[in-house]
Amino acid sequence: MAKQDSTPLVGIIMGSDSDLPVMQGAADALTELGVPFEMTIVSAHRTPKRLYDYAGSAAARGLKVIVAGAGGAAHLPGMVAAISPLPVIGVPVKSQALSGEDSLLSIVQMPPGVPVATVAIDGARNAGLLAAQMLAVADAALLDRVARLKADLEDQVLAKVERMAAGDITAETVAAARARR
Amino acid sequence: MAKQDSTPLVGIIMGSDSDLPVMQGAADALTELGVPFEMTIVSAHRTPKRLYDYAGSAAARGLKVIVAGAGGAAHLPGMVAAISPLPVIGVPVKSQALSGEDSLLSIVQMPPGVPVATVAIDGARNAGLLAAQMLAVADAALLDRVARLKADLEDQVLAKVERMAAGDITAETVAAARARR
Amino acid sequence: MAKQDSTPLVGIIMGSDSDLPVMQGAADALTELGVPFEMTIVSAHRTPKRLYDYAGSAAARGLKVIVAGAGGAAHLPGMVAAISPLPVIGVPVKSQALSGEDSLLSIVQMPPGVPVATVAIDGARNAGLLAAQMLAVADAALLDRVARLKADLEDQVLAKVERMAAGDITAETVAAARARR
Amino acid sequence: MAKQDSTPLVGIIMGSDSDLPVMQGAADALTELGVPFEMTIVSAHRTPKRLYDYAGSAAARGLKVIVAGAGGAAHLPGMVAAISPLPVIGVPVKSQALSGEDSLLSIVQMPPGVPVATVAIDGARNAGLLAAQMLAVADAALLDRVARLKADLEDQVLAKVERMAAGDITAETVAAARARR
Amino acid sequence: MAKQDSTPLVGIIMGSDSDLPVMQGAADALTELGVPFEMTIVSAHRTPKRLYDYAGSAAARGLKVIVAGAGGAAHLPGMVAAISPLPVIGVPVKSQALSGEDSLLSIVQMPPGVPVATVAIDGARNAGLLAAQMLAVADAALLDRVARLKADLEDQVLAKVERMAAGDITAETVAAARARR
Amino acid sequence: MAKQDSTPLVGIIMGSDSDLPVMQGAADALTELGVPFEMTIVSAHRTPKRLYDYAGSAAARGLKVIVAGAGGAAHLPGMVAAISPLPVIGVPVKSQALSGEDSLLSIVQMPPGVPVATVAIDGARNAGLLAAQMLAVADAALLDRVARLKADLEDQVLAKVERMAAGDITAETVAAARARR
Amino acid sequence: MAKQDSTPLVGIIMGSDSDLPVMQGAADALTELGVPFEMTIVSAHRTPKRLYDYAGSAAARGLKVIVAGAGGAAHLPGMVAAISPLPVIGVPVKSQALSGEDSLLSIVQMPPGVPVATVAIDGARNAGLLAAQMLAVADAALLDRVARLKADLEDQVLAKVERMAAGDITAETVAAARARR
Amino acid sequence: MAKQDSTPLVGIIMGSDSDLPVMQGAADALTELGVPFEMTIVSAHRTPKRLYDYAGSAAARGLKVIVAGAGGAAHLPGMVAAISPLPVIGVPVKSQALSGEDSLLSIVQMPPGVPVATVAIDGARNAGLLAAQMLAVADAALLDRVARLKADLEDQVLAKVERMAAGDITAETVAAARARR
Repeated sequence: MAKQDSTPLVGIIMGSDSDLPVMQGAADALTELGVPFEMTIVSAHRTPKRLYDYAGSAAARGLKVIVAGAGGAAHLPGMVAAISPLPVIGVPVKSQALSGEDSLLSIVQMPPGVPVATVAIDGARNAGLLAAQMLAVADAALLDRVARLKADLEDQVLAKVERMAAGDITAETVAAARARR
Repeated sequence: MAKQDSTPLVGIIMGSDSDLPVMQGAADALTELGVPFEMTIVSAHRTPKRLYDYAGSAAARGLKVIVAGAGGAAHLPGMVAAISPLPVIGVPVKSQALSGEDSLLSIVQMPPGVPVATVAIDGARNAGLLAAQMLAVADAALLDRVARLKADLEDQVLAKVERMAAGDITAETVAAARARR
Repeated sequence: MAKQDSTPLVGIIMGSDSDLPVMQGAADALTELGVPFEMTIVSAHRTPKRLYDYAGSAAARGLKVIVAGAGGAAHLPGMVAAISPLPVIGVPVKSQALSGEDSLLSIVQMPPGVPVATVAIDGARNAGLLAAQMLAVADAALLDRVARLKADLEDQVLAKVERMAAGDITAETVAAARARR
Repeated sequence: MAKQDSTPLVGIIMGSDSDLPVMQGAADALTELGVPFEMTIVSAHRTPKRLYDYAGSAAARGLKVIVAGAGGAAHLPGMVAAISPLPVIGVPVKSQALSGEDSLLSIVQMPPGVPVATVAIDGARNAGLLAAQMLAVADAALLDRVARLKADLEDQVLAKVERMAAGDITAETVAAARARR
Repeated sequence: MAKQDSTPLVGIIMGSDSDLPVMQGAADALTELGVPFEMTIVSAHRTPKRLYDYAGSAAARGLKVIVAGAGGAAHLPGMVAAISPLPVIGVPVKSQALSGEDSLLSIVQMPPGVPVATVAIDGARNAGLLAAQMLAVADAALLDRVARLKADLEDQVLAKVERMAAGDITAETVAAARARR
Repeated sequence: MAKQDSTPLVGIIMGSDSDLPVMQGAADALTELGVPFEMTIVSAHRTPKRLYDYAGSAAARGLKVIVAGAGGAAHLPGMVAAISPLPVIGVPVKSQALSGEDSLLSIVQMPPGVPVATVAIDGARNAGLLAAQMLAVADAALLDRVARLKADLEDQVLAKVERMAAGDITAETVAAARARR
Repeated sequence: MAKQDSTPLVGIIMGSDSDLPVMQGAADALTELGVPFEMTIVSAHRTPKRLYDYAGSAAARGLKVIVAGAGGAAHLPGMVAAISPLPVIGVPVKSQALSGEDSLLSIVQMPPGVPVATVAIDGARNAGLLAAQMLAVADAALLDRVARLKADLEDQVLAKVERMAAGDITAETVAAARARR
Repeated sequence: MAKQDSTPLVGIIMGSDSDLPVMQGAADALTELGVPFEMTIVSAHRTPKRLYDYAGSAAARGLKVIVAGAGGAAHLPGMVAAISPLPVIGVPVKSQALSGEDSLLSIVQMPPGVPVATVAIDGARNAGLLAAQMLAVADAALLDRVARLKADLEDQVLAKVERMAAGDITAETVAAARARR
């Protein structure tokens, strides 16, 4: 699951395996869009040498975009962006005490010269989509697939509009479905 | 200044002309990197039709990336991302009362399916760099120029390291330079 | 449940069906006050065209007030207010990570020229009441019903005052009732 | 300036005369739209009896909407809403220490049954517009004027689009204009 | 439980019966210290007339201190302080969405001239103790009881110091006791 | 100015002489109400022994109430409350970086058993009034003076109501007066 | 568990026994590193005399570092730092209402002259490690053990890298393990 | 100024020369205490290789403690702590938009295993003192100098106590002195 067959274009990394249930969203989005990726753990704080090696070799290994998720004092996305010239997407993972406010600020508030493309707290699916959009800059077929995914989203909402009008979606059915989860 | 000669690849838009001193940073970065861009005002709240038209035609007009800056209840980046399949970079502009905390949250906290690549509050220069990094996904020469810009940054810091060691940069010289600004 | 017989005067819209358990509160208040309304999903980010159509045609269709609920980077109320001249009431829906602080700021902090009448986080019932109060500007009978609803609230509290004085409401009974929910 | 000739339909009140430079924005918007209003000081904390009398008699005196601005522990809008059945618009005035975050929360977070239509921090102009939109629920001519005001806003932005394209609006001209203020 | 035999010196009021499990802490502290009190519901927003009557007659009825608890846009303590010359102690009750940050700010940030003595979020026990301390200004015996209560607290901690040294209190016993609650 | 002739009933202390311009407000209020007080510096962090001695001897020296102001990690009010049985009023002084949010939280969030009566950020005048209200619990004449001060406040506002109605107070006069300060 | 055989070099103190499950992390880290310590309760607010005695005698008793944990208006670390010349490490314990934001600010925002070395909210393990690092300033063998602990951490992450590559760690296994806890 | 004669024991580093006016406070404290130090720029984001080299060689070069200051998404202290076994003190530098709240959270919220000893926003002087306290763990003479510095602080406050009692320090003199700065 963590690796795909063709040469990966996107590297999904996370500071800890505990971030995996969140970060899986990025992998899922890329899988849906047919973008080859790799997924692994790189901890800025526990494996700094691996961080330097991973970020330093990413472009040469053929990666085009890096998606990095981390929580708390989240330094992984910013440090990868400091070392690699590739675009880096940061996913602030919701943290225990501060609900990800710390993760968000320590990822997004980067100084001039070293951007990190930050998505919402726990927004890993969007990080995957954004990586695909970046690759689509030079891949019209991929841009089409991105557009189709958006159209699908629209269709799903429109279908729910119908079902709510028909009385099939009510406050009760939604609350019940939520309780089942 | 707001338009360049070759076909623009990046569209820089902002909610108000008052955002221009901040957003100019994106234009400057793209100019330094030789990336053609256009720059204009699109207000989500005051010109919703223009927003719809601009975002809806951006890909067809040849734009590859959109940089959108806005402050307060900042809806411009997210709405462009809702309408266009292109990658959208959001710049939260510092706001009067809440120092851009409102701008940041209303840009970054996008729902699944509609990512906005958010940079720091007033981080327009980084938005320009990020746009270039996205284009560099398929442009090795541009990636080189991005890498060189980073190397230049490194050199500038290393030069300051020397000057501080030589006693040419002190708390007093820095404070004095700041006071002059 | 989502539609009433007479021509709706209030349009209740929400960004996602997951907002329905909250937004139902607006429908309930309008039902109690005998104000005809419609209720449906309009997603600013997933169905932007529907947003433009809905907001653009609302006044012509006879709607007088729009109640819009959304969470996170909540753009729905503000974008409806940008497109329609009708008064728009925004309901910040409590969000996963930030408890609705993001929803609140991205709804209330609108720029000059485009107001959104914002109520409390998850305050959909109040949005319904406020819509009725707006309609009551020209409907003395409705204003009377609003006043009576307030008087009923007062009576309910006064009845509880009695029951607490009689020892029928104690810290224990309240805690027990809460635990049952 | 604080009173108009015809019977006022909107009451603009504020907790202190120091709020007047902010609250004047509501008066200006109503003046532009030809809505008669009155403007005065009602302090929840310093003149509680006046608050009770003002709110209690507002509807009988012919007022249709109340705009109330206050800062810090801002109780004026909520208390007026508790006493009067009229729709109440709350303006959180920017406060000394906490920049209006306290004003905002103490105005918007009202309990079920007692809504306050809250606008942005220092958003008094929008409060005036919103009051007019409420009155326009039963006044098609006023709704037209509201729509025209929005169209004017759009035209002003479009004119700036032209001027920026022509190079007449640049980062420098905007910064210089700001410095003059 | 809500009333005591002798003439009450402290009035404990709360905005809703749902605040009772929290506010009971004030009653308990006063009971322990032998201070007669009364406890009832006064809602600033739902029973404004009762608020005016209660606050307006409190001093004449013999009350010396008022303890008022409320959550969200919490106006009860401040409005009582506006109407009565008695010292008012405010208890910010923890709120649903914002954990009492809204309650705290809307109680503590009172303007000059109208103080509210604010305690911690859900800090009703301390409100009771503070009320007793105020009464003890002119009651040496009560001051002694307050001092003894503090000494008891100290003794309880010192006993736990012994038990932890003896190995009777460990991380495990504490966690287990917490899980039982 | 820092001491009065009769035996002081209120001790006003502050963590640093830099807090004096704020804390003077407490002294002024007590002077207006004819309550004897003393005022001095007691730093929890720089003079911990003095803190212990001051708090430990306060009651015996005849003080009835202590007003303590401090900023940042503000420990003075809470530590005095830990040592003395007297009621302690805490004034969170506005801090450099965090505008007093740190001061407020570190003063108000006291644990059960050790209350601090907290007033607004920089709310020293209210601390003085509150101290007087506490003393008035057993001093009807003082309670009268407190009530009169409140009545004076009301009269001042009512006078401004007249002047605003007469056009003597306008947005311009208020802004001009503010600029002069 | 709360005491070790050799003369303790580190004193771990906490404001309440309810902090023990968190603070145990400091003890565990020191145990792993072979640093003798003692652990006890010292409440700044409930046992101020004990606080003065403990902090005042710590250096003379042979302690070299003090680790102090507290929550809410957390004064323990700062007061120990005020009394003792030893380095003090503060652990902000997660609080009920504000999730430790109050604990953090009231520990870290100390005034010039009285530092507290603050770690993350509930970061007691790091406090233990930091205490060991301080002792290692003059103990090369201990520094080696610290370095080895870091190397172990690195090895653990690298092992997980392998297991994730082998498909033994997936989003599902992580979520399942979390659910079991 | 940036280097001293004897072998430095403390390395003071900062992310940018613009941090120097703040970070000079650490140098001043160490100078007062006679602790040899070095001071230089190390940018985590602009000179990641230099960061790795500096942190990796610090212990071998004889440094015992590292003080690192940075603002915004402040990664320098945490990354040094990730690479070096030495104790690292982090100074959150006040940032433009968010007043250092971002700096604080991205420095203090470190994960288990990698502590950073965090001081107050802009608290560089305390970082210097804390570094000295760490060195004093094995240097009784230095511990004495630290204790004497604290005693001096106490004396300065006590002298101000006298001057305030004598009327030489008043609200006016303090305000005037502040205005001169």
